[in-house]
Amino acid sequence: MATTVKTPVDEALALINESVRTLKAYHLTPEICGVKLNQNENPCDWDKGVKERAAAFFVERPWNRYPDFVPDALKSRLAAHIGVTPESVIVGNGSNEMLLVLMLSFAAKAKSVIICSPTFSVYRLLRDGMGMRPVDVSLTNDLRYDIPAVKKAAADNPGAMLIICSPNNPVGNTVDESGLRDILSVHTGVCVLDQAYVEFGGFNALGLINEHKNLIIARTFSKAMAAAGIRLGYMVGAPDVIAEINKIKLPYNINFFTEHAASTILDNVSMTQKSIEMIIGERERLYDYLKALPFDNVYPSAANFVLIRTKDKQKLFDHLKKCDILVRDVSSYRLLENCLRFSIGTPEENTLLLESLKSFFEPGLRRQK
Amino acid sequence: MATTVKTPVDEALALINESVRTLKAYHLTPEICGVKLNQNENPCDWDKGVKERAAAFFVERPWNRYPDFVPDALKSRLAAHIGVTPESVIVGNGSNEMLLVLMLSFAAKAKSVIICSPTFSVYRLLRDGMGMRPVDVSLTNDLRYDIPAVKKAAADNPGAMLIICSPNNPVGNTVDESGLRDILSVHTGVCVLDQAYVEFGGFNALGLINEHKNLIIARTFSKAMAAAGIRLGYMVGAPDVIAEINKIKLPYNINFFTEHAASTILDNVSMTQKSIEMIIGERERLYDYLKALPFDNVYPSAANFVLIRTKDKQKLFDHLKKCDILVRDVSSYRLLENCLRFSIGTPEENTLLLESLKSFFEPGLRRQK
Repeated sequence: MATTVKTPVDEALALINESVRTLKAYHLTPEICGVKLNQNENPCDWDKGVKERAAAFFVERPWNRYPDFVPDALKSRLAAHIGVTPESVIVGNGSNEMLLVLMLSFAAKAKSVIICSPTFSVYRLLRDGMGMRPVDVSLTNDLRYDIPAVKKAAADNPGAMLIICSPNNPVGNTVDESGLRDILSVHTGVCVLDQAYVEFGGFNALGLINEHKNLIIARTFSKAMAAAGIRLGYMVGAPDVIAEINKIKLPYNINFFTEHAASTILDNVSMTQKSIEMIIGERERLYDYLKALPFDNVYPSAANFVLIRTKDKQKLFDHLKKCDILVRDVSSYRLLENCLRFSIGTPEENTLLLESLKSFFEPGLRRQK
Repeated sequence: MATTVKTPVDEALALINESVRTLKAYHLTPEICGVKLNQNENPCDWDKGVKERAAAFFVERPWNRYPDFVPDALKSRLAAHIGVTPESVIVGNGSNEMLLVLMLSFAAKAKSVIICSPTFSVYRLLRDGMGMRPVDVSLTNDLRYDIPAVKKAAADNPGAMLIICSPNNPVGNTVDESGLRDILSVHTGVCVLDQAYVEFGGFNALGLINEHKNLIIARTFSKAMAAAGIRLGYMVGAPDVIAEINKIKLPYNINFFTEHAASTILDNVSMTQKSIEMIIGERERLYDYLKALPFDNVYPSAANFVLIRTKDKQKLFDHLKKCDILVRDVSSYRLLENCLRFSIGTPEENTLLLESLKSFFEPGLRRQK
């Protein structure tokens, strides 16, 4: 070749979708504190014996062989766990992958995606990154679902994809059965109900799947199931609809470890019941205590976290960090100015949080003791 | 509510993209044989000691906590392993997820996707499922890349995404440096070079990344790295381009097991060198032997498999199954009528394959012994 052809970087960048280029890069600076109340994880790890039995399998199982094409055994156990047929279930790497597969399945026809803000940020990332038309419905001023506004958006955007998170992250509000039925009575597109936190409270909508074949429910092992590290999410819907979605899901999307760890968890699922009950009890204890502190707002929550609002947000965040407690600053979300989100930890961690809050509002307190 | 509104299944199905509904569901009937030569896996599993050290970590590491937001340590090791900067690398669940993320990053602007068929079927699944305009370039009749035809397709479709697999699955053919440079001299879109099998042969194109910022190379741990079970793929490209692609990649896409297992593998990567050399030697032994058998064709391969063509395809497939050997029937691919693909196994497995082939063509042979 006489000449060397090169492609400069600006030419390469110009090939990337505008919807991606205009996305804000999502950075999370890793901060480490002894008490981690920032990601809504279940604070109770799995029993060492359970993990050891799984680890024995990881040594025996050949790493060089592909996982199952479809993890049928896992799907069957999951289906039995929640009381549906295996054909109603599809599994993926966290509910994130499940949401992406939904967008891939419905995007061209739906065009618009209705999101009720503030809510889980990945919905917006996917919707905006894929260049779908955004329709945003605000929660009410007291951070509840505005059912009439959701219905109006659904009616104004026939065939749109509607995403509802219930219990809703990062607020903790829910949609109840009558509200959901009300929305579904006018919504003509697919309705994605993210129930990542449903084990902690709120209406469990699995029973509506049979009536509304356009309803798809996303769930996860990352919260109540105490397994955020393994990345397993799943969706439940009408078998015929799930079969179509399955076609665009990537083959071999679940590695053998996640598949086996999730099966092991389901074999021992009664163990989580105790931690779920503890978390619900602790949430109520924390909520009552927080209500008595001079916050601007403390919001009721059906999930494993509580949202508060205070003008001293930054000072409080920094104070808690000094106390070795990491919480989540969600103040950049729509309607959530000055808000922090506290995940529910172990009773000891929550007590430490409460003491640290007390020492923030009554700085002399610790010294007086 | 006075009336119960229901959504029937046909209304729900009508909401799904046509591009997905018209996809053929990809079924793989799981067949089990003692000798597994159907998925191009490295037949040598990892050392038990390596797996035990990793398993000890899986017991200690809390399952209830999220993995790293970005697996920086893994990215750095990977980058060092292949001799690039960490900013040039992005990791995902198999190269499948990487290909999907590329489609999400470039689809709107590229519109058309050029695929050289026959090749790895996931390209078509994603392209067609996402409704992108298909441009197919055939390999030559002797199953080599038709460089002039690829260049013409690139020139006819300015800005298109071009996917080239080299070494190419399921054929084993490659594009060499001058062919690739020739293509890149006229191609104005993004060029995805899938080098899943590059450790086994063919031109390693990593050195072209600096010259061609529109070139992205996909690699995997599923083949030479002997870790198909953990699902790790990665891509390498210009850091600025990788940074943009990163924005649409799902957060927390790598679970802690895959992250740790991959790091462990990189710590012990010299162990794979022996199996790679064995596989290359065995491929040549198998190829020479196959050439002497009455096949219609045996194709040269730079990968860890060999493609053959025979009018007795179905009888041979069934015969091998009776001999407890599973190979891959690829006869439904374009240009691959009557073709079977044999993955390279261990020397013992390959000898068994050769003996079984011999007894197929000389049925009296075994009895005569």
